[in-house]
Amino acid sequence: MSKLDGIIENVMIEAWAERFRRSPGQANALHESDSELVELPGDDERYLAVTVDTVHEEIAQGLYRDPGTMGWVCAVASLSDLAAVGATPLGLLVSVTLPDDADGALARGIADGVEQACREHGTYVLGGDTNTADSISLTGCAVGLVPRDGALERTGMSPGDSVFLSGRVGSGNALGMARMGGFPEDAFPEQSYRPTAELAFGELLRDHATACMDTSDGVCATLDQLMRLNGLGFNVDCDWSRLLAPEVLEFCDRTETPRWLMAAGPHGEFRLLFTVHASAIAGFMEAANHAGVAPVSLGTVQPKPAVTLSLTSGEAVDVDMARLRNLLQQTGGDMERYVSEFRRAGQEWGLE
Amino acid sequence: MSKLDGIIENVMIEAWAERFRRSPGQANALHESDSELVELPGDDERYLAVTVDTVHEEIAQGLYRDPGTMGWVCAVASLSDLAAVGATPLGLLVSVTLPDDADGALARGIADGVEQACREHGTYVLGGDTNTADSISLTGCAVGLVPRDGALERTGMSPGDSVFLSGRVGSGNALGMARMGGFPEDAFPEQSYRPTAELAFGELLRDHATACMDTSDGVCATLDQLMRLNGLGFNVDCDWSRLLAPEVLEFCDRTETPRWLMAAGPHGEFRLLFTVHASAIAGFMEAANHAGVAPVSLGTVQPKPAVTLSLTSGEAVDVDMARLRNLLQQTGGDMERYVSEFRRAGQEWGLE
Repeated sequence: MSKLDGIIENVMIEAWAERFRRSPGQANALHESDSELVELPGDDERYLAVTVDTVHEEIAQGLYRDPGTMGWVCAVASLSDLAAVGATPLGLLVSVTLPDDADGALARGIADGVEQACREHGTYVLGGDTNTADSISLTGCAVGLVPRDGALERTGMSPGDSVFLSGRVGSGNALGMARMGGFPEDAFPEQSYRPTAELAFGELLRDHATACMDTSDGVCATLDQLMRLNGLGFNVDCDWSRLLAPEVLEFCDRTETPRWLMAAGPHGEFRLLFTVHASAIAGFMEAANHAGVAPVSLGTVQPKPAVTLSLTSGEAVDVDMARLRNLLQQTGGDMERYVSEFRRAGQEWGLE
Repeated sequence: MSKLDGIIENVMIEAWAERFRRSPGQANALHESDSELVELPGDDERYLAVTVDTVHEEIAQGLYRDPGTMGWVCAVASLSDLAAVGATPLGLLVSVTLPDDADGALARGIADGVEQACREHGTYVLGGDTNTADSISLTGCAVGLVPRDGALERTGMSPGDSVFLSGRVGSGNALGMARMGGFPEDAFPEQSYRPTAELAFGELLRDHATACMDTSDGVCATLDQLMRLNGLGFNVDCDWSRLLAPEVLEFCDRTETPRWLMAAGPHGEFRLLFTVHASAIAGFMEAANHAGVAPVSLGTVQPKPAVTLSLTSGEAVDVDMARLRNLLQQTGGDMERYVSEFRRAGQEWGLE
C-alpha cells in the first residue's frame, strides 16, 4: 500500500484509521471501496453498504451559493458511493448544521435540494439531526443493499481491461473554474450543476466491472487512486470533445479555459469510472445497450503504474497526479496560488 | 401532534421534515423513536436501525476539552440511539471535521476516544470521512439490527405503567454545571463523564418495555417529550439521593449546586428511560435480575399530561419543561443568562 502514501489525503485517512480495529464482519479493506460493505448476520446473500460524506469546504469556499445545490450535492455524494459499489439504496440520513442566525429560506432551500435529489434517485430521507454552528455543514449518510457476489470494489482490474465512464464529465470543474476565475454567474450557471448518482448504472455493473470508483474528486484523481490501489496504470484517450459534457465544452470555449482542467480538477461530478475485462466487453455493451445507457470509453489499463494521457495531437504525457492532488494542502487554502500552480503543471506537461 | 409544537426544537425538526416524503419502507413515524427503523426487503424478521448524530455545540461551548471525551461522546450518542430501539449494532461511521491547523494530537485523541467507546460497546468503526473547517464537528452514524417484534419506540405506554431508568443519572449535567459555574477542573473531572450506550439493557427491554427513549437531553426533557408524544404524563418520585449517581451527589454537595438541576438540565448521560406495564413488572424484574442489571424506579405514568415531581418533602410540583427546553434558543447562547433563568424557574417552582 506504500503507493497510496504519495497522496496527503491517503496518509491522513490512514493515520486516522490505524487507531481503529477493523470489524470481522466488514468485507472491504481500507480505501478499497466507495462504501463500507458489512455482513448482515444470517444473510449469506447480501452486504449492507453504508457511507458517510460531509459537504462543507465547497460551501465555505463559495463554490455553492444556492441552498438547493448544497442539499442536492449532500444527497448525491452519499448515494453515489452506494452506486459505486453496485448497491440499491434503502435511504438517506442527513445531519444539517446551520448558523444560528440562518433564515428559514436557507433551511428550506437545502431541504428542498435534498428532497429533489432523493426523488430523482427514487429514494427517501429516513431521518437526521439538526445543529447550529458558525458555518454550514451537511452530512449525508446513505444505506443500501448489494448482492455479495455483485459488490463492486476499487481493486480487481487487470492490464488490458477497458476503462469507461458512465457518462460525460467536467461539470464539477466547470463550476469550480467559473468561481475561481471570477467569471459572471451565467458563464456556468450553478443550477446546471446537478450531478446524479449513477445507481442503475452501478447495479448493471455488478455483472461486468472488474473495478469501480466514482469521480467525486475528478476523473484524473480517480484514475490516480485506482492506479495506486491496483499497482497498474491507465492509458487515457484524451479526445476532450468526446469526454466532456457539451455545456462544459461550451464553457471552455467561451471563457478560454483549457479543457484538460475539466478532467484534472478536484471537483467532480459523480460519474462511475470502471474497468471491464476484454472477454466481457461484448456482453457488457449488449447489457448497456439493453439498459439504454451509453458508456463513454476512456482508455485501457496498462501494466505501467502511470496515468498516461494520449492527446489528439498524437503526444502521450504521464501526469504526476500527486503534484496536483497534494496542491490544495500545500497552498493552504490560497485559491489564486492553487489555480496558478495547477495550471503551471499543465503547461510544463504540454497540456495547455 | 400539536403538543409537540410547544418545543422550539420539535417545530424546527418538523419544518425540516415536512419537506421530505416518508419512505414506505420506514416503520417509525417522525419523533417516535430514537433510531429510524427500516424494512430490509426479503427479511420479515428484522428492521435495520440507523441514526445520525452530530456533536458540535458541546465542543464549541467548551463543555468538552479533552479530545478523548469528544470522540467517546460522538460514538456513544449514536450507539445510544440504537440501544433505545433495542437494536444490536453492526458498526459506526464517523465523519470528522477539524480545523486546518489542528495538530496531530487532537485527531489522535478524538480517534482514540471513538475507538475506546467502540471497544467498550463491542462494536467497530466501519469507515468515515475527514474534512476541515473553522471548528471541530463530529458526526456519528450507527447502524444495527433489531427483531421487528421487539423494536422499541417512544410511544405505547399506558397510565399506571411503571417508569424506570437503566441506571443513575446526572453526570452530564454535573459536567455542564461545573463548566457553566466556572468551578475548578477537579470539581467534576471531565474524564469521569464517560457515559455508556445501554445496548444490552436495550436488548433486554425488547420483551418488556411499552416505550423507551434515551436521556441524551436530560431526564426531564425526556419525560416531557414522552408526555407530548403519548398524551400522558408522569409522576416522578424525586428522591435524588437514589436517582443521582454518587459522584453527582458529591459534586452537588461540594459545590452547593441544587440537585434538581442534575435531572432537569439539558446535558444528559444516555441512560434509557422506559415504561413497563403493571402486568409485566414481575417478569421484567426477574429478567433484569438474571441479566445482572439494576433498573432504577422513577415513578409512574399518569393520565394527566404533566411532569409532576413528587419531592421527598411531600410536595408535588408540575414542572413546565417547555419553559426550560426552549430557554437555550430564547437566551441566544448567553450562557450566564441561561443558567440564571433556568434556576429562577426552579426557585419559582419551589425546587431550590
